[in-house]
Amino acid sequence: MELKEIRQEIDKLDRKLIELFKARMDCARKVGEYKLKNNLPILNTERENEILDNVEHSCGEYGYAARQLFASIMELSRALQHDIVGSGKEMRALLKNSEKEPSLPPDQLRVACQGIRGANSHEAATVLFPGVEPDFYPSWKDVFAAVDEGRADCGVLPVENSSAGSVGDVYDLILKYRFYITKALDLPINHCLCALKQSELEDIEQVWSHPQALSQCSNYIADNKLKAVPFSNTAVAARAVAEEKRLSCAAICSEQASREYGLKVLKKGIQNSEDNSTRFIVISKKLYIPENADKISLCFCLPHVTGSLHNVLCRFASHGLNLTKIESRPLPGKSFEYLFYLDFTGNVREEHVMNLMCALSEELPEFSFIGNYSESAEGTSSLRSPAQL
Amino acid sequence: MELKEIRQEIDKLDRKLIELFKARMDCARKVGEYKLKNNLPILNTERENEILDNVEHSCGEYGYAARQLFASIMELSRALQHDIVGSGKEMRALLKNSEKEPSLPPDQLRVACQGIRGANSHEAATVLFPGVEPDFYPSWKDVFAAVDEGRADCGVLPVENSSAGSVGDVYDLILKYRFYITKALDLPINHCLCALKQSELEDIEQVWSHPQALSQCSNYIADNKLKAVPFSNTAVAARAVAEEKRLSCAAICSEQASREYGLKVLKKGIQNSEDNSTRFIVISKKLYIPENADKISLCFCLPHVTGSLHNVLCRFASHGLNLTKIESRPLPGKSFEYLFYLDFTGNVREEHVMNLMCALSEELPEFSFIGNYSESAEGTSSLRSPAQL
Repeated sequence: MELKEIRQEIDKLDRKLIELFKARMDCARKVGEYKLKNNLPILNTERENEILDNVEHSCGEYGYAARQLFASIMELSRALQHDIVGSGKEMRALLKNSEKEPSLPPDQLRVACQGIRGANSHEAATVLFPGVEPDFYPSWKDVFAAVDEGRADCGVLPVENSSAGSVGDVYDLILKYRFYITKALDLPINHCLCALKQSELEDIEQVWSHPQALSQCSNYIADNKLKAVPFSNTAVAARAVAEEKRLSCAAICSEQASREYGLKVLKKGIQNSEDNSTRFIVISKKLYIPENADKISLCFCLPHVTGSLHNVLCRFASHGLNLTKIESRPLPGKSFEYLFYLDFTGNVREEHVMNLMCALSEELPEFSFIGNYSESAEGTSSLRSPAQL
Repeated sequence: MELKEIRQEIDKLDRKLIELFKARMDCARKVGEYKLKNNLPILNTERENEILDNVEHSCGEYGYAARQLFASIMELSRALQHDIVGSGKEMRALLKNSEKEPSLPPDQLRVACQGIRGANSHEAATVLFPGVEPDFYPSWKDVFAAVDEGRADCGVLPVENSSAGSVGDVYDLILKYRFYITKALDLPINHCLCALKQSELEDIEQVWSHPQALSQCSNYIADNKLKAVPFSNTAVAARAVAEEKRLSCAAICSEQASREYGLKVLKKGIQNSEDNSTRFIVISKKLYIPENADKISLCFCLPHVTGSLHNVLCRFASHGLNLTKIESRPLPGKSFEYLFYLDFTGNVREEHVMNLMCALSEELPEFSFIGNYSESAEGTSSLRSPAQL
């Protein structure tokens, strides 16, 4: 048989498959209408497993493949039923009642930051809230507490490539406090060698900084035979250089920290890799969804069974939503469940996105809507230019 | 219409769908045989997109859903064709020629470790290679270089919850050096307060450690009003306490570090959270796949288009393989591609797993097989008992 003939046969089968799929979705619509009228739940695991077992059994060598295919068909059918029933009333109310931005004018906002003046979080806060002078707190937890107790309207936290904790830690706190992400920023990190005004490059024998910054600049340190001294924070190191007034000591810190503590920049960009940035998020007690929000963050659990992630992703894909980040984490003490963090593109004010959120909020265990916000791309791109750094 | 009647209709449709799916897979088999005979490539993106556009177009309101479904059908069809053609000859040769374990007896193995004696990597190496005395190197890169230049047979590196770098960094190095993961261990981290033999708990005024360890023990430090002093490593802090001989100073380090530097453990388990562990991996230049290997690590790129991850996961699910970890990372400088790290359960000596690896190695851009190994669960569980820590 020639390839052309086989393909003609496939096309013929596909036309029939399409008609059957449409008829099946029409049936799913009727099931949805029936369940709406009779107030029945959408998910019927027992019936689904029965169908899947039967499909697998009757497909012989294609059994596993057929099972996956029908699992997808049932996901799509369930999505339609949720739309008809109008699932997830609480989620719908939460999203519909969200405001577009804080009612406070920007200059009255109280922003909580982790770290001290001149730390990277300070720079991030300045980019995210121009003109606002943030308050500083020693730990992430203190930032959350400040927002929780109303001492701050929002908090700025580093979440990736950060030495203050892992992405998991900050998400744990967000879930614990039931906060939301309302903004995000990808801040390029440019490590500078900063010393007293009187110091020259050839005077420097020691570099002071956070161990992570020291390791990110390990090539420069080795090439120049410098002694690396660890500090708890890059800005703390800058302050110590300013206070101890030793000509032979320099801090590895940001340009902002050098200004903050009256140091001189001896050399910019001494990190090993060009591509060094940290992601910051803004957390808030109240859900704000800006008009131009284009990123949604979610978190949910999945049972550790074959294909469970594949099935859920079917829902996002069939809504035309693109994932931009996915990360799994085993749940401590529950070896057969996983927690997933997902970011994808979209705005919940689009009806089909809203519907998807509402449906998933009913279906997925531990589902949390963490925010719908925009990444400050402008701020980032202008900051990427060397002149700004 | 009653629910029962609609379900009967659905069952009828499903029986037809199953028959059509089987017929379509039979056609895929014929296509595979034709391509094998005529030495044609499996992937035909142009024809696939044509089919998908046509499906979406002819399904009206179900267009997106149908497109996803047919994308899955084509994944399954392609998987079958790869099996018939015997794709991925290079990958097949690599996997088939892998050895089950290093031919060196364990006591002749030279193991490279990042850090210094008494660091957590040292403990991990001791668990992974009992009786072997590892060599220590200052950075991850030095460990890789030692293995690359033949000064070590393998290297032990922390990859999660680690202050020495991110998971991404170590994967970048693995890919750069074309190394493999040959073992893994999840080591519980138990921070101990350790001081000179003559010190008592009430003498302690300062704690010395790595900033991450200090922050993981922040509650204990605050409750006991101690001054936290940063060091570049927990074991470096222990050594400093031993050398400086001040009764009021304690290190936060492992029990092994306290033994190493002749300190006394004043208090065990002072970390805030019970659930503190670090994952270590063993890297090697040569691919070893132990008999009992049950975890596979992969890395590949996907284009940033709707459903691309969903489609690939279909392949794993239809082979009955369970994902145990997934992590995405944007590719620097390529804003429309993502790099994925995946771990899943399986052993490539099973034919269908081998076939999947071979097929994906042909299809996915930047596909890298990173290893098939076993997680040291025994070592971990015995270490989890407080007596051992």
